[in-house]
Order: sequence, then C-alpha cells, then structure tokens
Amino acid sequence: MALIVQKYGGTSVANPERIKAVADKVAQFHQNGDQVVVVVSAMSGETNRLLALADEVSPTKNERELDVLVSTGEQVTIALLAMALQGKGIKARSYTGGQVRILTDSSYGKARIQEIDNKPIQADLDGGSVVIVAGFQGVDPEGNITTLGRGGSDTTAVALAAALGADECQIYTDVDGVYTTDPRVVSSARRLSRITFEEMLEMASQGSKILQIRSVEFAGKYNVPLRVRSSFEDGPGTLITVDDEVDMEQPVISGIAFTRDEAKITLRGVPDTPGIAFKILGPVGESGVEVDMIVQNVGVDGTTDFTFTVHRNDLEKAQAVLEKLATELNAREVFSNDKIAKISLVGVGMRSHAGVASKMFEALANEGINIEMISTSEIKISVIVAEKYLELAVRALHTAFELDQE
Amino acid sequence: MALIVQKYGGTSVANPERIKAVADKVAQFHQNGDQVVVVVSAMSGETNRLLALADEVSPTKNERELDVLVSTGEQVTIALLAMALQGKGIKARSYTGGQVRILTDSSYGKARIQEIDNKPIQADLDGGSVVIVAGFQGVDPEGNITTLGRGGSDTTAVALAAALGADECQIYTDVDGVYTTDPRVVSSARRLSRITFEEMLEMASQGSKILQIRSVEFAGKYNVPLRVRSSFEDGPGTLITVDDEVDMEQPVISGIAFTRDEAKITLRGVPDTPGIAFKILGPVGESGVEVDMIVQNVGVDGTTDFTFTVHRNDLEKAQAVLEKLATELNAREVFSNDKIAKISLVGVGMRSHAGVASKMFEALANEGINIEMISTSEIKISVIVAEKYLELAVRALHTAFELDQE
Repeated sequence: MALIVQKYGGTSVANPERIKAVADKVAQFHQNGDQVVVVVSAMSGETNRLLALADEVSPTKNERELDVLVSTGEQVTIALLAMALQGKGIKARSYTGGQVRILTDSSYGKARIQEIDNKPIQADLDGGSVVIVAGFQGVDPEGNITTLGRGGSDTTAVALAAALGADECQIYTDVDGVYTTDPRVVSSARRLSRITFEEMLEMASQGSKILQIRSVEFAGKYNVPLRVRSSFEDGPGTLITVDDEVDMEQPVISGIAFTRDEAKITLRGVPDTPGIAFKILGPVGESGVEVDMIVQNVGVDGTTDFTFTVHRNDLEKAQAVLEKLATELNAREVFSNDKIAKISLVGVGMRSHAGVASKMFEALANEGINIEMISTSEIKISVIVAEKYLELAVRALHTAFELDQE
Repeated sequence: MALIVQKYGGTSVANPERIKAVADKVAQFHQNGDQVVVVVSAMSGETNRLLALADEVSPTKNERELDVLVSTGEQVTIALLAMALQGKGIKARSYTGGQVRILTDSSYGKARIQEIDNKPIQADLDGGSVVIVAGFQGVDPEGNITTLGRGGSDTTAVALAAALGADECQIYTDVDGVYTTDPRVVSSARRLSRITFEEMLEMASQGSKILQIRSVEFAGKYNVPLRVRSSFEDGPGTLITVDDEVDMEQPVISGIAFTRDEAKITLRGVPDTPGIAFKILGPVGESGVEVDMIVQNVGVDGTTDFTFTVHRNDLEKAQAVLEKLATELNAREVFSNDKIAKISLVGVGMRSHAGVASKMFEALANEGINIEMISTSEIKISVIVAEKYLELAVRALHTAFELDQE
C-alpha cells in the first residue's frame, strides 16, 4: 500500500469519455489498496474558451477576475471525476484549491504555493476516499482565488505529494516517459527508465516539454519521486529521482535536448574593457528580454565581439536596444541570425567523465557541421548550429553516445 | 445616494454582448452615486451544459459534486461582469458564494441561507467598488460548496439586501413588471406599479412565474423593498412592498392569476364521519402527492362527496391511491378530470370589501361559465372551470374588476 498523487492534464480529461477512463485508472490503484490523491487540469480547450469570453467582454483584463474565471475550468473537472468514480462505487471527494487550502501569495496568474493543509486530505484518505484536487489554483491569505499559471497543475501535484509525504507523484501525460531525445527526430530514441532531477531540468528547459520546470524544481527541493507516465497506455514511464539514487552504471549522457526557439545577436568590435558585458546586458534586461547563452571572445586590438542568444520572439526588441548601444559604445556593427538551433547534451555522468565535449565536437565535425557557439555547465554542453543541420546533428550525437542502446 | 442590490438572471447575461449591456446599466447607477451590489446567475444554457456533462460521466450523481459542478456557472459570470465594468473604468470586485461567505446548511442542491457576513461587501462599497456576487450558491459550515436550487439567485439577492439593509432589491428579468394578468391572454392587461408581498405570493404560486416564491417570502419577512424591472428596457417596473404602505385608494383586486397545471379528483359517496378528510388525504400525502384545493360538500344520507386538485403530473398516482381507498371506505365511485383550469382573483382590498365573490360569480355566469369548485382565502378567491373557458373567464373578470384602468 502506498500513498500516490496522480496528475492528469487537459488532454487526459478532454471529454466525459476520457474522464471515465481516468476513473478506471484511478480505480485500479484504489482497489489495489493504494491511497490516491488525484490532481486534474481543466478539460482541454476549456481555458481557451473562457479566455475568449473574457476577450469579448473587455479589452483590458483584471488579473484577479481572470483567475476567478479560469479557475472554474478545473472545478468542473474535479466534480465530473468525483462523479465518475462514485458511479463505479468508489468513495471520492473533490476539493477546489481554495477548499483544500492551497495557500499562495497574491500574484494572480502566477501565484506561488506557500502552504498546504494536509490534514483534511489525510483524513479523507484514511476514511477510504479518493481525494480529487483542482490543479493550477489556490487561494491567497485574504481568500482571493489565485492561479499558478500555465502548467501549474504539475506544481499542485508535486506540492501535494510533498505536503502528504507521498511515496510517488505520477504525472500522466500524452507521452509514455522521458526519451533520450525527440522520437520524431531520432526514430531510435529510447525511453529512459530513470533520470535525475537536475538532468530533467536541463532537458525541460532545453525544450523537452513534458514537465513544467517549476514542478521539477519543487520535486527536487522536497525530494518527491516523480514519475512521468502515459494516460493512454500502461507502462512504467520514467522515474525522476535524486542524483545519489542513480547507480554508477548510469551512462555518461542521459539525453539530447534541442530547440529552434532562439536567435543569436552579435555586437562586433566593442571596447574590451571591464564592465562591458554589463553595459550591454543591463539595457537588454531592462527592456524585458531574457538572455540565454552568452559568449565573449578574447579581444584583439582592444576590442572584442560579444554574442548572446534570445528567444526568437524577442529578437527585434533586443536588436533595437543594441543598435542604440552600438552608437554609444562606438561598436563596429550589430548582426543577428535567427536561423539557428541549440542542441544540448545532458547527463550527470559528465561530472566524472572527461572527453564528453571533444567526442561531441568530433561527431558534429564528422558530419561537416560547423559549431557557431559553445556553452557548458556541470551536466550540460550546448552548441549553436545552423538550423538546417538540427536533425542531422541530433541523430549523429544520439548514435555517437550510444543512446539507442539500453 | 442609495444602496441597491440588483439581480440579473441567465437570459440577461446570456452572452458577452448582454453582459456588457448589464455593465452599462450598473454603471448608470454607480455614476449616479448609488452603491451597487450585483447578483448574477449563470449564462443561460450553461447549467444545462454542465448537467449534460455530468450525465455523460455517471448515471448516478452525487449531490455534493453536482453543486461543485454547477456553481462554476455563476463564477464565470461574476468574473466576466467584473471585467466588463473594469473595462469601462469602474472599480468592481467579484465574489463567489463561498468567498462572500453566504453561509448555508448542507442540503446540497436546495440549501438554505443561514447567515451572510456583510462587512467585506460594505467595505468594498465604501471604497467605491461595485460588488458582484455569484447567485444561487453558498458554502456550508465545513466549507463545502452548496447551491440554493433553481431560482436561488433571487433569494441570494434578497438575502444580501436584507443583510446590507439595502434601500431596494431590484430583480431584472425579461418582463417589465408584474401585470394584472397574463398579457398573452388579456391584451389590456396593465403593469402594476405596486403590489404587496402577500399578493405577489398568491400571484406567483398561482402561475405568474416572475419571481421565485422563496425570495418573495424572504423579502416579506425581512421587509426588503423588491422591484421587478426589465433588463432590456428602461421603466419603473413593479415595486413589491409591505401591506401598510399601500394607500386606501388601492383597488380591491390587484390581479388575476391562473394555471392549467391542475387536475381534480373526486371520491363520491364516502361515509360522512369525523376524520374522513384525514383518512383520504393522509394516504395521498404519504404517496408524495401535494394537494392544492380541497372541497367537501355537506352530506346526504350519511355520505358525502370529497374533491381535491393535484398537479396534473400527479393525477395518475393520486388516482391509484384513491381506487384502493374507495374499496376500503366503501365509496360509491372515483372520478377525475384534467381538463380544468384554476383562476384566482388576488387582492388585499378583499379584506375590507364585501361583494367581491358575488361580483366574480356574476361575471362568470354572464358568460355562461360553470364553476366546478370554489375556494377562498383572505386575499384570494379561486375557482375551477373547464379549461376551454379559461381565456374567456380571465378576460371577463379583468373587465368586470376594471383592471385595465389605472
């Protein structure tokens, strides 16, 4: 017997048929003797339907009222899932975020969980009920409804698992686990049975959009074992655990993440003086643009070239800032390129294994792929290449690091 | 400057266009210096949409979860109306039933309001905000969501008006007031500028379905001036007030109510002994059938005829009970008729005016309409006639009592 928190996203509860299928799945665990807490999102499409109504009513939208509006989406799902379980003869009880008292701050639309009262839930579980909680929502100290922002249901599930000391937090989604890389790009991509929180964070932030980063951070912080599973088929999924539970036989590289969402921008021939990086990135940050990779080459003739990447949508804004700066700093030129892709090797094994970078560069060189930028961290090596090489590069690396083999 | 509670029903907030129209109306009062609390229902069709989802999920429906489900309907409306007002530059704040703490008992689906905390609302009003409250819903002492049952939004509005000591509770609906009778039957039917709570109760229970009986009872009990107005056009509507505010010039009769929903059933030749009425109506009540009018004639030869009316839907059930009773009581026969209509004259003036009944019977006799049953109360005289005479009878009475004249 275990205490399990399960989370089902919008596509898993998209219609009454699917909600009944979720009830079947939950029922299996319950009948198996497990105590089950289920966190659900709004039925897919529902949040957008509500936002469209808001659009029709007013061009400007108050954030407090938006949260009152969209939080109804999950409330509908919890009631329907409770009824579906009750219809199968299983005791079930639903709670909104406010009722279970998921206490958050008052940042409407992106509230952060501060505290959860686990006693009523534990009492219901001990009484033999399945407990169903609306994901994505909470309540601030004044009783106002808040939402945690997109993907917040994952965070709700992890926070509940932490508060209840659950044995496992299972995130049900439309994929059956975390893969070595995107199977649409590399057909031999393999499901990982385990991955560490840190690796998952790097995979997620690099564009493997299975779990919300915040929920993984949260799970890591509170040491909640997290398992990604498929809503639609049976299977063990991928378990995300702390580093020290990973055995020594763990391969050096766990996976390859990639993204086409970035653009790079270069300021050529700026004075190579102390503080130049801040002079450039300060105004960029002030304009609200987030910077990802940053590379500064050693200077020649007292000047240097400064390159960084931003989200493609922010390129225009960043460029405007730099054009202005270029004049002020007497830089030679500004140029940008949005036909790039970023590829990252991720693996905790890197820490104890030398030669990962050179093996990576060799594999890319063998395919004639030029590397435009390089950035490294403890468990990750990222490179920027021309976008047209993306698939070729990912496949070459997948093979070079033998990720298709168990 | 006045404190006004306004209630807008489902058709008044059926879509974003109409919600904006409600915002315009509310804005007028607000800009006029009034403090306004708005109670809204779910957008029309929304409750049925939610119930249809529940039907698909489970044949049996838990009442607690049904309330969690359907209460989302009003929650959507409060958020949208708040945004619509804010979009017009007016401060507004929405509250669910639970947030404003409309405390009810735990009778899911038909909860009764026990207490309302008026302080937060009054504070918002004093701060210049329009306060928007979800109708039809509350919260029980354990924090479970409850609903007040169909039409409960009227009750929410009246209860809030009572708790806040409001100057007026305005119920916006699709008619522009209470009429002397149904204008579809009598084209010269006239809007009443005033009517008493008692008369309104008689009009409502007799089939003038403008206000929920419960909300009128509530308003009468707490002496909340209630005004029925049109959502779609301007006009003073009808004010429902206590008896002593009605001046002496008040006409004897305020209106004519009627219904085709009833059927009558007669037990002929039962022993005319003490307790016979209970012997008959006891088993009928136990079978769950509600009885409306009851007439017992004086006996002849130690037997009497006993007649009563029931809702047409209950006729079969009542008849089955009586067939059984007829044998036990050795009655002569049971017969029923569902081709009847009930017509009621309503007016507090009856108390001090004699001759109303005879004038009524004369008017019907002049049209050759036979009266099958008569029942009287302090402010009402009801007759049963053949259904085919309904329109003719109502028109004759409307003219006889000069209801088409101011």
